[in-house]
Amino acid sequence: MKAQKVDMFVIPMATPSDTTGLQKLADAGKIKPDTLVALVGKTEGTGQHDDWGRVWADVALREWTGNFLGIPAGDVAQRVIFVLSGGCPGVITPHIAAVTREIVEVSDAGKEKRMVVGRAGSEPMPPEEVGRMGQIHKVAEATKRAMADAGLSDASDVHLVMVKVPGLTVASIRDAESRGKTVVSHDLTFGPEGAGSYANDAAALGVGLALGEVKESALSDEVVRRNWDLYSEVAMTSSGGEKRHGEVVVFGNSAGSQSALTIGHAVTKDFIDAQGVRNALRSAGVRFKDGLPDEADLGRLVHVFAKSVIPGSDQVRGQRITLLDDPDAYQIGKALGGMLIASVTGRTTNYVSGGERNSHQGPPGGNIVAAVVRT
Amino acid sequence: MKAQKVDMFVIPMATPSDTTGLQKLADAGKIKPDTLVALVGKTEGTGQHDDWGRVWADVALREWTGNFLGIPAGDVAQRVIFVLSGGCPGVITPHIAAVTREIVEVSDAGKEKRMVVGRAGSEPMPPEEVGRMGQIHKVAEATKRAMADAGLSDASDVHLVMVKVPGLTVASIRDAESRGKTVVSHDLTFGPEGAGSYANDAAALGVGLALGEVKESALSDEVVRRNWDLYSEVAMTSSGGEKRHGEVVVFGNSAGSQSALTIGHAVTKDFIDAQGVRNALRSAGVRFKDGLPDEADLGRLVHVFAKSVIPGSDQVRGQRITLLDDPDAYQIGKALGGMLIASVTGRTTNYVSGGERNSHQGPPGGNIVAAVVRT
Amino acid sequence: MKAQKVDMFVIPMATPSDTTGLQKLADAGKIKPDTLVALVGKTEGTGQHDDWGRVWADVALREWTGNFLGIPAGDVAQRVIFVLSGGCPGVITPHIAAVTREIVEVSDAGKEKRMVVGRAGSEPMPPEEVGRMGQIHKVAEATKRAMADAGLSDASDVHLVMVKVPGLTVASIRDAESRGKTVVSHDLTFGPEGAGSYANDAAALGVGLALGEVKESALSDEVVRRNWDLYSEVAMTSSGGEKRHGEVVVFGNSAGSQSALTIGHAVTKDFIDAQGVRNALRSAGVRFKDGLPDEADLGRLVHVFAKSVIPGSDQVRGQRITLLDDPDAYQIGKALGGMLIASVTGRTTNYVSGGERNSHQGPPGGNIVAAVVRT
Amino acid sequence: MKAQKVDMFVIPMATPSDTTGLQKLADAGKIKPDTLVALVGKTEGTGQHDDWGRVWADVALREWTGNFLGIPAGDVAQRVIFVLSGGCPGVITPHIAAVTREIVEVSDAGKEKRMVVGRAGSEPMPPEEVGRMGQIHKVAEATKRAMADAGLSDASDVHLVMVKVPGLTVASIRDAESRGKTVVSHDLTFGPEGAGSYANDAAALGVGLALGEVKESALSDEVVRRNWDLYSEVAMTSSGGEKRHGEVVVFGNSAGSQSALTIGHAVTKDFIDAQGVRNALRSAGVRFKDGLPDEADLGRLVHVFAKSVIPGSDQVRGQRITLLDDPDAYQIGKALGGMLIASVTGRTTNYVSGGERNSHQGPPGGNIVAAVVRT
Repeated sequence: MKAQKVDMFVIPMATPSDTTGLQKLADAGKIKPDTLVALVGKTEGTGQHDDWGRVWADVALREWTGNFLGIPAGDVAQRVIFVLSGGCPGVITPHIAAVTREIVEVSDAGKEKRMVVGRAGSEPMPPEEVGRMGQIHKVAEATKRAMADAGLSDASDVHLVMVKVPGLTVASIRDAESRGKTVVSHDLTFGPEGAGSYANDAAALGVGLALGEVKESALSDEVVRRNWDLYSEVAMTSSGGEKRHGEVVVFGNSAGSQSALTIGHAVTKDFIDAQGVRNALRSAGVRFKDGLPDEADLGRLVHVFAKSVIPGSDQVRGQRITLLDDPDAYQIGKALGGMLIASVTGRTTNYVSGGERNSHQGPPGGNIVAAVVRT
Repeated sequence: MKAQKVDMFVIPMATPSDTTGLQKLADAGKIKPDTLVALVGKTEGTGQHDDWGRVWADVALREWTGNFLGIPAGDVAQRVIFVLSGGCPGVITPHIAAVTREIVEVSDAGKEKRMVVGRAGSEPMPPEEVGRMGQIHKVAEATKRAMADAGLSDASDVHLVMVKVPGLTVASIRDAESRGKTVVSHDLTFGPEGAGSYANDAAALGVGLALGEVKESALSDEVVRRNWDLYSEVAMTSSGGEKRHGEVVVFGNSAGSQSALTIGHAVTKDFIDAQGVRNALRSAGVRFKDGLPDEADLGRLVHVFAKSVIPGSDQVRGQRITLLDDPDAYQIGKALGGMLIASVTGRTTNYVSGGERNSHQGPPGGNIVAAVVRT
Repeated sequence: MKAQKVDMFVIPMATPSDTTGLQKLADAGKIKPDTLVALVGKTEGTGQHDDWGRVWADVALREWTGNFLGIPAGDVAQRVIFVLSGGCPGVITPHIAAVTREIVEVSDAGKEKRMVVGRAGSEPMPPEEVGRMGQIHKVAEATKRAMADAGLSDASDVHLVMVKVPGLTVASIRDAESRGKTVVSHDLTFGPEGAGSYANDAAALGVGLALGEVKESALSDEVVRRNWDLYSEVAMTSSGGEKRHGEVVVFGNSAGSQSALTIGHAVTKDFIDAQGVRNALRSAGVRFKDGLPDEADLGRLVHVFAKSVIPGSDQVRGQRITLLDDPDAYQIGKALGGMLIASVTGRTTNYVSGGERNSHQGPPGGNIVAAVVRT
Repeated sequence: MKAQKVDMFVIPMATPSDTTGLQKLADAGKIKPDTLVALVGKTEGTGQHDDWGRVWADVALREWTGNFLGIPAGDVAQRVIFVLSGGCPGVITPHIAAVTREIVEVSDAGKEKRMVVGRAGSEPMPPEEVGRMGQIHKVAEATKRAMADAGLSDASDVHLVMVKVPGLTVASIRDAESRGKTVVSHDLTFGPEGAGSYANDAAALGVGLALGEVKESALSDEVVRRNWDLYSEVAMTSSGGEKRHGEVVVFGNSAGSQSALTIGHAVTKDFIDAQGVRNALRSAGVRFKDGLPDEADLGRLVHVFAKSVIPGSDQVRGQRITLLDDPDAYQIGKALGGMLIASVTGRTTNYVSGGERNSHQGPPGGNIVAAVVRT
């Protein structure tokens, strides 16, 4: 029978266009043109609209990958999924995590569940569907197919779902309106009423629907970014105006896997909840000693993926904070998540995205943390 | 025999000019005109040059205190020491800590060491001494007198020394140069070569000299902001152009005290070292359970005072961070310290100042954390 | 017969709470408790949500005015209209313009039109009306009454209408929704879909409706912040969550006035159009020499009021600018308006508000400039 | 006899890596491998330390130029001088100006002076010379050789001198100190005491010395960034840690030139002086009508090069501005210069660098403006 063998390599980057770490992995045979399935990373810069660090990294990584795969850079997207999150404020080291997947022949399935990964593209999403039920349903459908691709049938085995969906642009709004359709927002930002936020949150609800975290009957266009009681505990989503289809990558554990890795996750209960981060490490299999991750065992921790969504309330544990009124909240909010994770993992090469206010990615006030551990 | 009885009350502020919490304490008789010795707080705003939150808070608190003491606002400084640190980015709740001190008659000293506080003003510091040996010596001398005022003779009983010293201004530089003197810098900022940084760091070395942390023979004008191996583990210092004298407040523990409080401190080993924060709490007497502060016991934690100085290196535990190149490093650096403390104390009303790069306040890369606990 | 005699005094402020300039005017008898009708100013600070400079200025000016009028600070709003615009980036000097109005007895009207001012409050505006036709109609109605109060019947004599209206707050949204009403936006910012922007723009359309610049038949809830061809050339509007009614101040010229001042206005055709600024000065009566304001005559220029709304397009005269993608666009946009005005008036004490993107205050891409000149 | 024929082409860039405009010029034969001598441009982004737009542009332009010249990208610096200034806040369009130079055979010199360009590299500048007399002298010497290369002997024919010199780095400071030398500053920023500012200002004084604007006897290490009465009216300088030699490009007018271009310059008297900008255009030969540049003639204006150094005083024409206390002064200061130029030229493709505080580039409070006009 066939089984997945998944691996993950975390490589710090010295500049946005630094591919030397990837090249070393390639030279050592750890990543191969046939096995590379995803590059997930944090790129340095402000993470804001005029941050060219992320764009440059995307160009440089796509060019390197095209060369590596022997295909044009423009075709890389069909073979390798890129999730590049801009902005490394504070204690977030710019880095890339390369994910590989091999299909190996095994006599019988292992006893322990080990990491698997699955991918799927969605149906095209026209602009009038962005941030609405259309997008939710198409992400849900793609999530189910990505689960199937990963060989996962039980939602409780899914620990992280990364999704990229189309957002809105001036051009796509014009297109929709010329056809007599409305769009969810004319604000193209990731602000509270921004199209980017609606797209991300519809995607998160789509994941929640596929995994049974959110009921179909509870969903409608009106609940998106309104009813925060609806959320996924494993969805990390992003959106871009240039896309027409959604892309979904599912990470989970399966008894059929031959990987040396396992994945786990947890959610924080609020913005300062280090215990939630520790729970994620524990869930993935890190050993604890005296209530803290055993430092001797932290070497087995491969990577952490975390959101740092800013709470919608100005209260944390009953006291006021001023973050909601801070014009730099986007960057500071992301930086704070980086510190919360780093103070637990004892390292700075953590994937932490966020800075937006409120989300269906994780519970109200809390955030998602997933961890990958080498067995 | 006479003994000190010190208390501390932490009051969140709803706006920069909010004195309702202080008034309630006054109405309840917890603070009295005769007992109030210091107001130490974090004021909301950016903490940068054009942040008027701190200035407004200072005006409003001085006015309230003048009324409370029955003296003009301009005379308040002679009776009550104000340490207002601007900027509450992230998870730092704007608040004020009111410190009271009574002298009570006791039959004999207690067995356990309890908190005491002492104050002293320094000799005037002309501009040519700012950031140099003159300032170091005068702060050292005032620190010794503040220790005496606290009834402390052993440096190991001192856990926190807050100091305010004169910085430089356009006018004071002109004054010095008109007398043929030089000044340490023409940069009036808190940047790496700024006069504000030199003043703060000379003050820290002065505390270190008084407490024996730094040897007289190791000191010279040339080592200030050059030799980072020289530092104090208990000095939190600030400077202002308007001042002519230094002010020192010493917090420590003494067997002669009748206070219900104890104070302790520790230093973090680097910017993400939550264990250093936990050590400070343990030092002050918080009980631990499974390696973490016992939540049931955290109610006894009165307050935490911490610095969040940005490391001078771009490496944290062997990995690169981009904070040194970030134009928002001052605010983000302060916010990160707030998160590190809050993730351990489980609350956001912590005093966290910082954001500057490198300091003789604490070891290279690490920061000072002091904690006050009710017994 | 009775006639208005209006005057205006521009006073730089040294700090947000500086009232010494006002006091000097009062001491000199230039402003009197009976004549002071408005204080319009720019306060220093960032102009962003966490800028306490504006709040402190408001408190300090209200306190001073209350003392001056012999009434409680809380009652000042009923006698003197405050328009304080936060943020003085670049070359905008923090200042206040005091407007006085006397009613004098004259034998017959003057031949030349001179400045008059009129005020009116609107009906209360419930949250469901904010940014919609309800607000438009109520501002229009109040504008007409303010014109009547100014003694103006011809819209072409109106050169500046300053309006303050209610915006939305978390509490007022909850109130509306509990009564089964919807609100225009849940975004409380001044972003492109923010409630503050909708409120400001509904107010501008209300002025346009009153003055005949916009036809009733062209208006509906749907055109607000959608159809930029609808605009007023004289409306400068702001909004605040704390307000329940609108307030309108109309400035114009009337043959019945005994003022020594005249007012004029023009609009710029785009963001770099210095000629538009010169046209405003010319309209108000400044003499020109060689195509430029005659420097010898600029002493008669009392004040300029200008908007600096950022264009909604990324093109200025056919070339791309990056302002729309700049996270600091709000401050930079305001600063640029300050420079455009100062480079023409040769002074920095100009009232320039703005930084928001797109508005019904002025034509698409252009901005409103009004000027007051002493005859 | 031989004569220069210089041309200049201004090309907007759609992204930091956009070379399509250059390619079109190459395809049209307007720039040739043998004639291209300099690329001078503004790159989009923040212009701050973590702005990757400038770095990416440099990489992309060097790669394109290497291909164009048929040499490795690493050798491009020996053939074509790059001056890329980061940051296009406000109304500055990202663009590149390509400068070409041909040597043509002519029978006799023209009567009218036309534009010429000359280049020279300096002797190596060790770190201990940065910001001091060593750097001043070597820039002066290179400026004289660049004048000779341009065929200019009279300093009054020089209208713009662009200089790039070595700054300091952690490594070069260590090198200097290991050899027992001191360095001008340990602050690596462009702040008031930053090594970058010292390097730029020593370079400006070097130009001033070469052109006779500053006397040798007035110069010493002590006057750099102290005596602002010493300055050049034509020097625009920058510095970078990676450099070891200085590079100088001189632009001027010579009777021997066969160019269709002329260059002129002027200085503004203060930060809001539009007349100074108009004077620069007039100096270069733009025709005026009614005190303003004749719009019909502005088509002949090829390009403007301007500095926007922030004044060291908080007073502009007797009124206070708050720019010196603004943490965003660097970007706002540059943006304001962009507006001052654009409001006169009526276009946004102007080269405007600046944002630093005080400089020997231009008089105290004023700035340098150079203009190139097609005859």
